[in-house]
Amino acid sequence: MRNLMITIEYDGTDYYGWQRQPNARSVQQCIEEAIFKITKKQSVIFASGRTDAGVHALAQTANFFTDSNIPCDKMVSALNSVLSYDISITDCAEVSEDFHCRYLSKNKTYEYRILNTPHRRPMERNYAYHVRGELDINLMNSQAKKLIGKHDFKSFCSLGSSTKTTVRTIYNIDLSKQNDIITLTITGNGFLYNMVRIIASTLIQIGLKKKDKDILEILESKDRKMAGPTAPACGLFLKNVSYDIDMNSNLY
Amino acid sequence: MRNLMITIEYDGTDYYGWQRQPNARSVQQCIEEAIFKITKKQSVIFASGRTDAGVHALAQTANFFTDSNIPCDKMVSALNSVLSYDISITDCAEVSEDFHCRYLSKNKTYEYRILNTPHRRPMERNYAYHVRGELDINLMNSQAKKLIGKHDFKSFCSLGSSTKTTVRTIYNIDLSKQNDIITLTITGNGFLYNMVRIIASTLIQIGLKKKDKDILEILESKDRKMAGPTAPACGLFLKNVSYDIDMNSNLY
Repeated sequence: MRNLMITIEYDGTDYYGWQRQPNARSVQQCIEEAIFKITKKQSVIFASGRTDAGVHALAQTANFFTDSNIPCDKMVSALNSVLSYDISITDCAEVSEDFHCRYLSKNKTYEYRILNTPHRRPMERNYAYHVRGELDINLMNSQAKKLIGKHDFKSFCSLGSSTKTTVRTIYNIDLSKQNDIITLTITGNGFLYNMVRIIASTLIQIGLKKKDKDILEILESKDRKMAGPTAPACGLFLKNVSYDIDMNSNLY
Repeated sequence: MRNLMITIEYDGTDYYGWQRQPNARSVQQCIEEAIFKITKKQSVIFASGRTDAGVHALAQTANFFTDSNIPCDKMVSALNSVLSYDISITDCAEVSEDFHCRYLSKNKTYEYRILNTPHRRPMERNYAYHVRGELDINLMNSQAKKLIGKHDFKSFCSLGSSTKTTVRTIYNIDLSKQNDIITLTITGNGFLYNMVRIIASTLIQIGLKKKDKDILEILESKDRKMAGPTAPACGLFLKNVSYDIDMNSNLY
């Protein structure tokens, strides 16, 4: 059996998230059905992680086992030929049998996009969170930088999630503005449930001067109620998943 | 009666174009229905021009007569509160009784967006024309510049359109690239039916080296068959409509 790793870009607007579930359209199900159409065999795909309903991906990664001998470049075009236009396979590579997109991922980068204009923008309605009030980006950026490092992010994790530890490491976090879009880019070794969306909304409240607490105070409180609400899914993009292995070798 | 001029941004994907028509959802109809909901009176809106099905607008202009005394800024938020999220009113101004958005428009700017990547991009599927092959942008730009000036654009006009003259003036035309998106920006005193989309596809064929004719030869032939096909609607954006009058005075 070959183990194939694919890179996937998708518009999550019309999906109930990545994970396959009964009676709801998921990205996973659509890709598994595409693989079945091309290879005539059922395959399960293992993603780097789930994304929630309405969340997008620029480069989600997933692997699956197949006895098909379709070359990797042909597999990309074959899958795209049967997938709907809101999903695109952008790469395919053969990996070693023990490679797993979830367990071997080293770090992930997410983007959270904020549209900061008085009036809504139709073309951005599914791809950014619209915030009308004026945002102090310098303040947001200086507060955001304080989250870099290894911390207990319990304040920024939705209640009810089951995880062994709420300690994570953020390697980099940055805010930039281009035209009317403010982009929060955050790289870490892993993220708790809704963590990026809660960090985004907390920074927005700080930027709007609606929360005058220092973000370190919120972090150290380990109290979910101290942080902002969960910002809408439409602004969130899984931008990159990186691995320790050499992604340029054809077989690893 | 007050004559109100509104500026409108819309995502044309789910509309059968600007113009009201039986049994099909149009931008005009949705805005007229919104005005009725707010003012309780029927109004007809006069746009700077029609846009076709799937074509977008960043700043379409239209005017309508109303005896409502809702102030302009409140009219913007009132209309947006009843419009769907793919239409946004971004401005409203009171204009003189004889002002007409179509007949007094001085020039218009359109953008045509081309996604130039090997694989399709889900988030751009409704907002750019996907061209896989490598495009020679410098060649496209130098050819495009030759269209500046007053010319008979019959070669770049869809057959069957009824217009007195096919002579138009292009004031500026430019190609720029940002990330994977090539944007053709074109300003003129008016455009023939499908003119921007035919110019775009002709430049794409030139950029792909699939057409080795000089664009002036195509222009001078006055033969529609010499130009490229009509490029898809999704790449086209009405970017700006300008008027001779002082748009900053509250009443003109």
